[in-house]
Amino acid sequence: MTQKTRDSAAQGESQAAEVTAALLVIGDEILSGRTKDKNIGYVAEYLTALGIDLEEVRVVPDIEAEIVAALDALRQRYTYVFTTGGIGPTHDDITADAVAKAFGVPLDRDERAVALIAERVGVANLNEARLRMARIPRGADLVQNPVSKAPGFWIGNVIVMAGIPAVMQAMLDEVAPKLRTGVKLLSESVRADLREGDIGTELGAVAKAHPDVMIGSYPFTDDQGGPNTNLVVRGRDPQKLAAARSAVERMLAQVRAALAAQQAT
Amino acid sequence: MTQKTRDSAAQGESQAAEVTAALLVIGDEILSGRTKDKNIGYVAEYLTALGIDLEEVRVVPDIEAEIVAALDALRQRYTYVFTTGGIGPTHDDITADAVAKAFGVPLDRDERAVALIAERVGVANLNEARLRMARIPRGADLVQNPVSKAPGFWIGNVIVMAGIPAVMQAMLDEVAPKLRTGVKLLSESVRADLREGDIGTELGAVAKAHPDVMIGSYPFTDDQGGPNTNLVVRGRDPQKLAAARSAVERMLAQVRAALAAQQAT
Repeated sequence: MTQKTRDSAAQGESQAAEVTAALLVIGDEILSGRTKDKNIGYVAEYLTALGIDLEEVRVVPDIEAEIVAALDALRQRYTYVFTTGGIGPTHDDITADAVAKAFGVPLDRDERAVALIAERVGVANLNEARLRMARIPRGADLVQNPVSKAPGFWIGNVIVMAGIPAVMQAMLDEVAPKLRTGVKLLSESVRADLREGDIGTELGAVAKAHPDVMIGSYPFTDDQGGPNTNLVVRGRDPQKLAAARSAVERMLAQVRAALAAQQAT
Repeated sequence: MTQKTRDSAAQGESQAAEVTAALLVIGDEILSGRTKDKNIGYVAEYLTALGIDLEEVRVVPDIEAEIVAALDALRQRYTYVFTTGGIGPTHDDITADAVAKAFGVPLDRDERAVALIAERVGVANLNEARLRMARIPRGADLVQNPVSKAPGFWIGNVIVMAGIPAVMQAMLDEVAPKLRTGVKLLSESVRADLREGDIGTELGAVAKAHPDVMIGSYPFTDDQGGPNTNLVVRGRDPQKLAAARSAVERMLAQVRAALAAQQAT
């Protein structure tokens, strides 16, 4: 949507209704293309369902200064910052170091985390590498890892999770009940059965007339192989949403009729 | 890798060898989870193959001020900034507006772009919405779109592409021959057949001893269902890469032997 529309939408809602988030994906392997990220889409959908607006994602390499800079930029701006990746046992896992540095706290060996890791691998196998995963910034709460035990953590508004999708998803389930959530953003899809270029101007007029909702337009190829468009109307007020949806449907009927009349002549 | 290792790696190479890039993904639909991004992984792999280092990715919503801020942060820092999304015919497609604003140039109707779009849809169908796709920041070069004609563009060090993966990929093929490329970052994978936690300390020592390469460690579940680890050694100098790979393999053999001896007792 345009800046104008989005600003109006924000004004139309109480500030308290919005809980925002950013996601920071940490790892050279994503930036080299070696590993294809599977967490962004999952986190986006998960937070949206909770009523938390994901407003920004960044992917940064395994460089401490880059991670700290991104953390500092994001944690000032959003209710929550979720991170994925960089909490394993090897030298390239530096997320905990970066978070401790961003918060200006020591990175202690956490005995709760040591106990969890020992539970998994046995006390005899608690070597230096595995104990690396027990280094938790002082003052953080642990985020349980029901998959492989080595925990994530939560400090301030930053929630640090593993990069492996199955572990990340389990950690998200652990923290979800403790998150503040907003009034859920409702969403309705309308299939246009028209090409995006046939409705752009008219859709813009509908968007302008309904400043309290957001209207997105997404072209796709339909099952007949033709160009088609999905329109998505989003907003927090069910009545305003219904009114905008009706306006979209009226507009689509008018454009279809006009195109049919044009083809008939 | 640690900050120290990465800095050393950078010092070990000539500055000219590095061509860097950032990717800016634009669209509410990615942040809501409605659309799962397929471009980040593709662009990452593509640029890596060309010898261009993708160093940062950001995903931002369809808000002009956010897009401009991200563009300005990224284009100062990297050789190239690629964008995906927001160049269609509807009111929520505001990437061209944001790029024009970032560069401080007018957003003109471009007759070359008009001709391309007319070729696709016919002159009779050149309505206001479709002509929206012909608005190109003044001074930009067009990026041809062999899939659906409406072009992307290239201004300064910013390359603006469509969000639809098939179109984005075709546009990337169009611009690739014109990109400055660096000395390709070479990469070798070694399967550890050990758990990440068994080798973390020893691997850290190898990484420290080979500061001119980057060594990443990626746990995975192997076909026997057991925890395993891939080690990836990357660098631009083939000899240094080979030396580091040998050191990794020696280290792995030693750890395997030590674990076997431990189990035998």
